[in-house]
Amino acid sequence: MKSYRFGNPFSTGAVIEKPVKFLQIDELPGFKLTKSSASVILRYRMQKDDIVIGLGEQLGGINKRGRKYITYNTDIPEHTPDKLSLYGSHPFIIIQGRYNEGLFIDYPGEISFDVGFSDKDILEITVGSADFDLYHWQDNRWQDIVTSYLELTGGVYVPPKWAFGYQQCRWSYPEAKSVEEVANKFRQLGIPCDAIYLDIDYMQDYKVFTVNEERFPDFGRFVKELRDKGFHLIPIIDPGVKIESDYPVYEEGKKHKYFCTDEQGEDFQAAVWPGLTHLPDFSNAATRNWWGNLYKKFIELGIEGFWNDMNEPAIFYTNYQQQGVYDKLQAAADNKALDKVDLIGLQWQIRNFHNSREDYQSIYQHPERDKTVCHDQIHNLYGAQMAQSFSESVQQSYPDKRFLIFSRSSYSGSQRFGGIWYGDNKSWWEHLELNIKMLINCNLVGYFYSGADIGGFGDNCQAELLIRWLQLGVFSPLFRNHSAIHTRRQELWEFDKATMNQARKIIRLRYALLPWLYSQFLEFASMNIPLIQSLSWSFSEPRCREIEDQLIYGGSLMIAPVYKPNVSGRMVYLPQDKWLLWWAGSWEDRKMKVLAAGDHFIECPLDRQLIFIKENTLITMQEPEDYVDQRKPDTLFIIGLVSSTAQVKVLVDQGKYPAFAGMAVLDITMVKQEKNYEIEIKTVNRELLQWQQLVFELYNDQGNLTILHRKLI
Amino acid sequence: MKSYRFGNPFSTGAVIEKPVKFLQIDELPGFKLTKSSASVILRYRMQKDDIVIGLGEQLGGINKRGRKYITYNTDIPEHTPDKLSLYGSHPFIIIQGRYNEGLFIDYPGEISFDVGFSDKDILEITVGSADFDLYHWQDNRWQDIVTSYLELTGGVYVPPKWAFGYQQCRWSYPEAKSVEEVANKFRQLGIPCDAIYLDIDYMQDYKVFTVNEERFPDFGRFVKELRDKGFHLIPIIDPGVKIESDYPVYEEGKKHKYFCTDEQGEDFQAAVWPGLTHLPDFSNAATRNWWGNLYKKFIELGIEGFWNDMNEPAIFYTNYQQQGVYDKLQAAADNKALDKVDLIGLQWQIRNFHNSREDYQSIYQHPERDKTVCHDQIHNLYGAQMAQSFSESVQQSYPDKRFLIFSRSSYSGSQRFGGIWYGDNKSWWEHLELNIKMLINCNLVGYFYSGADIGGFGDNCQAELLIRWLQLGVFSPLFRNHSAIHTRRQELWEFDKATMNQARKIIRLRYALLPWLYSQFLEFASMNIPLIQSLSWSFSEPRCREIEDQLIYGGSLMIAPVYKPNVSGRMVYLPQDKWLLWWAGSWEDRKMKVLAAGDHFIECPLDRQLIFIKENTLITMQEPEDYVDQRKPDTLFIIGLVSSTAQVKVLVDQGKYPAFAGMAVLDITMVKQEKNYEIEIKTVNRELLQWQQLVFELYNDQGNLTILHRKLI
Repeated sequence: MKSYRFGNPFSTGAVIEKPVKFLQIDELPGFKLTKSSASVILRYRMQKDDIVIGLGEQLGGINKRGRKYITYNTDIPEHTPDKLSLYGSHPFIIIQGRYNEGLFIDYPGEISFDVGFSDKDILEITVGSADFDLYHWQDNRWQDIVTSYLELTGGVYVPPKWAFGYQQCRWSYPEAKSVEEVANKFRQLGIPCDAIYLDIDYMQDYKVFTVNEERFPDFGRFVKELRDKGFHLIPIIDPGVKIESDYPVYEEGKKHKYFCTDEQGEDFQAAVWPGLTHLPDFSNAATRNWWGNLYKKFIELGIEGFWNDMNEPAIFYTNYQQQGVYDKLQAAADNKALDKVDLIGLQWQIRNFHNSREDYQSIYQHPERDKTVCHDQIHNLYGAQMAQSFSESVQQSYPDKRFLIFSRSSYSGSQRFGGIWYGDNKSWWEHLELNIKMLINCNLVGYFYSGADIGGFGDNCQAELLIRWLQLGVFSPLFRNHSAIHTRRQELWEFDKATMNQARKIIRLRYALLPWLYSQFLEFASMNIPLIQSLSWSFSEPRCREIEDQLIYGGSLMIAPVYKPNVSGRMVYLPQDKWLLWWAGSWEDRKMKVLAAGDHFIECPLDRQLIFIKENTLITMQEPEDYVDQRKPDTLFIIGLVSSTAQVKVLVDQGKYPAFAGMAVLDITMVKQEKNYEIEIKTVNRELLQWQQLVFELYNDQGNLTILHRKLI
Repeated sequence: MKSYRFGNPFSTGAVIEKPVKFLQIDELPGFKLTKSSASVILRYRMQKDDIVIGLGEQLGGINKRGRKYITYNTDIPEHTPDKLSLYGSHPFIIIQGRYNEGLFIDYPGEISFDVGFSDKDILEITVGSADFDLYHWQDNRWQDIVTSYLELTGGVYVPPKWAFGYQQCRWSYPEAKSVEEVANKFRQLGIPCDAIYLDIDYMQDYKVFTVNEERFPDFGRFVKELRDKGFHLIPIIDPGVKIESDYPVYEEGKKHKYFCTDEQGEDFQAAVWPGLTHLPDFSNAATRNWWGNLYKKFIELGIEGFWNDMNEPAIFYTNYQQQGVYDKLQAAADNKALDKVDLIGLQWQIRNFHNSREDYQSIYQHPERDKTVCHDQIHNLYGAQMAQSFSESVQQSYPDKRFLIFSRSSYSGSQRFGGIWYGDNKSWWEHLELNIKMLINCNLVGYFYSGADIGGFGDNCQAELLIRWLQLGVFSPLFRNHSAIHTRRQELWEFDKATMNQARKIIRLRYALLPWLYSQFLEFASMNIPLIQSLSWSFSEPRCREIEDQLIYGGSLMIAPVYKPNVSGRMVYLPQDKWLLWWAGSWEDRKMKVLAAGDHFIECPLDRQLIFIKENTLITMQEPEDYVDQRKPDTLFIIGLVSSTAQVKVLVDQGKYPAFAGMAVLDITMVKQEKNYEIEIKTVNRELLQWQQLVFELYNDQGNLTILHRKLI
């Protein structure tokens, strides 16, 4: 990797240890550079078979060719294929070709990536500034570029284990009673669940860090009661601080100059849910410290998880925009021409209120007392630095505790502070398919803990879509069902009884697999290798470069989700060599079959999902609990197709910070002998491992099953 | 089939010969009927494996289960999965299950079809009226229900042969020069093309049936010059008649009371492209006669094709809607509170101007002098009756000539008057995939001559998408590239040279296949069997019921379009038994391979497309021309995999009306002998067949090729 500096860049914090020396740049081998005072253009001629990956949270496929992308974080409610930006910016891109080139352009404003859209052979990157850092890799293995990028930007956030449980959200459960009803329903129906979310209506007048006391009397007790039932309550946190006298957050922020300003230095006003607000200036360390500490009020009440929303930052409108329309109307009124106002033009003008670029260009931030930066130039950092504020402040106060924290907006590097979700998707089959790609693309830039709203946020879900989405969700680290106001309810029991029963089986499967799913998360995070990968990560067959509807979780499992309606099966491509297909209907039902490499049409009715265990790898399971670590089952099942040797490590962390502190390990190695299996078991911190019994379910390459029992000593 | 009458229905004209006797209905076997004065609800319990097809131009799949659909024609610019209505209404639905039930609900207002959306097992049809006709089939073969429906509703429109040529459109070629440039470009580059379109800007101030004389001086000469080069010029026709004194169409319509009215009997005002307009009342025979005759002005100048647009009818806004906003603004101004107007609310109010249901409910039509019907109740007939007006009047004046006529809006039955296109799609891969289903779904209700805008109308196309879309387009009877104003240009030469070359090869392939493509159209139209079919039409394997990304054209060809970006091939399912894969790069390049039934991954780089010829069927080709019937090549190629017997009919119609008048036929039958082929050739009207030479390219089931030559005597 080589590091180049253009001009005098803003320090984004994306890279944890700056290289000692930045190189001066006149040319970048393979690229044509065009510099001006306001932009730098990099052009690269792609070969016909080159594949371009990266860019993190973006639409399009895993292979990014044929489209344009823009890094400019935006609150965008319709994820249709024409959209060039979503909520996060991750300007890291890899060309898989002759040399495997990697680029990370550390610039938090607008960059456009024209990946063969205007000219199918040309990758053209236009950085909207002459001040940025550029990291360039040329490597034999593109996978090594990914790992190097993750190391450079500080590794990967690891959530507490309970955050791997199923989670239920709705805009909104607006008062204690509706939360309680949902919680009780889970326990009555025996559906595992670890978290229930509070969307914006829990607040008093949408004032961040407040709770409406009428709707949530004795909030602290409520939080604890839920915890006793095994639920975490997770409030939403929006950055906009309502302008309201005597509201402490507002008064403090105003007094200490924690807010973004306009050009004149007045606190900038932006309307969001609470009406007019000020936006905390997260570029400033003092602001971050202040803001981060605000979460503690909730933490002291027992809250252990938060979701940061609206932090692109979303702006519904500003006074400036509004005044423009009022002036126009007033002028028409003065001329007695109100009945000649062009209403269609007015419609467009009002529509452009939302997240207006003009507004972002009018916001100023002050990373230091005497330093002023136009927000537009560091726009993409806003959500990342909000996450940073939590990480810095809360971790300081609770040095050995890990929290669940995830965000809508993000920027390269913020994957070490927390996770993300993919924002306002819809109850569309197309968005279930998109979810597969998003998992792979976001893992590639380190957001292992991420996921889409299961069932779709906007629009109306239906039973089959929910079931198919839950089936994918089993392998989504963030496994949360969420839906918008005014849409059909999509809690699991809101459809027919068969759907509810099937949903329960799927979620119990998730909990059964938790020892393995979470272990793999820890292991891959420790190696800075994406947890969820495209097939091409591990398999070199040319076909794997084009498969975008299957994914690998950890090293062992391949998932082929059904993402089309009304089908009883799907085609699956299996790379080398053998796979154990688990035709999973429930965690107990081990319908297994050995399959060879190649294309297979595999039946997959609604009550089944397709899980493929790679030959000579092992997965682990335990009896599902109602919530994570409820009963700590004492039997661990170890399952696989072992034809030569296989190994599995079960990592059990203690929820401490940092993630790997005091971890217990169960390390199992086995060798297939002619007639039996040789098993070696090693442990670290044995006393922290809950399991007493190990049950091995071992298949040979003929599909014959051997069951072995071991005590864990 | 049984016919039932509810109440006193409006006569839609959908059914050509009314049954002598309608049955009284108290119950419909298998359905639960709920009647009220304003609606009828039909509920049907679907079996788990039932497939539901039909509904014509709608989103969703070929199998309609799991979604809701509403018949209420609408001008809708974003075909995202949440949309419940498009431009046409075809309330014909088939449940493929134990009995194969078919329903055609002949009601031209709103009907909702909840096909297992609210309850996955229930089909619930809510007819928004107590007055309608219902046709009910129970048949052993669902295919027979389709044919019976097509017979009942009058069969299928057959366009003239040149309408099978490639067609180029753009919003807009606004003056003669830009049309000429496009035309010349086709001939210079040797890309076949038969038609160029005029979008709204050719008119004077958007006044229908006018031509802007500055931009098109001597329009008649221009039309003829283009015809000399082999191009048909096809103007757009919108129903809204601009309110403007001395504009003859307006004055005539007003004088003779040809327009829709409001409740008070005043001509209804609706704003569309020209500003405020009146809408012709096509429910009235005198209006239809008047309107139909207006086309003749163009016909006399040599125009032979038209596209009817905006005939849902689209309404941008009405005075009533606008006044509501102005009143609100005025009230605020009077209170000096203009600066308190809720702009977000205003935005929604203005947005709802477009195609407002309230407006449709305020329009009245007068099918007879003393009869008044609220438009809302017959809304879906508007475009169909506009097409009817052309068909009735023009055909009367030119009794033996066939015209190209197609429409955006349609209703069951209007498939006998003309074709349709699928409206404002986008340059999205998703919409290329949708195109496959739309072809099948629209053919099922008789719109054989239909197609999507190749390359996508809205949003920006790119080279690979255009190529893949053209490849599908070869098998789309309406084969028209069209794109919207403000989007990237997508004429074939607007990308790189390789793309243009490839586009030419694809279009030449279309022209090479024309003898076969057009013959099949004629043959299937004469039998009332869909020309383009899902695999399940002819193949009973259960897999075929679920395949929605392959199609059958005519009886012989299966098409497996590539509809994903950046792939070098795709999976294809081949039903029984053997298929001759033509790995087509150009018409000359006969790279063939025999494939057996089953799943195949088939390489398909961008310069190839996959055409599968069914065993024991034959297709015919000739050297491509620059436009249809330019040179009338004298050699016909007959190609197929013949292992026992095969037959092909080439039908050559004379462009006369009715379609099958004076048709010439070349009828070839062949029988595979042990060592050679026995060929029998019959002709009808031999003198009208252009071919002198027949070249047979016959493959046996081992893939060995035999070439035979015959003179056509």
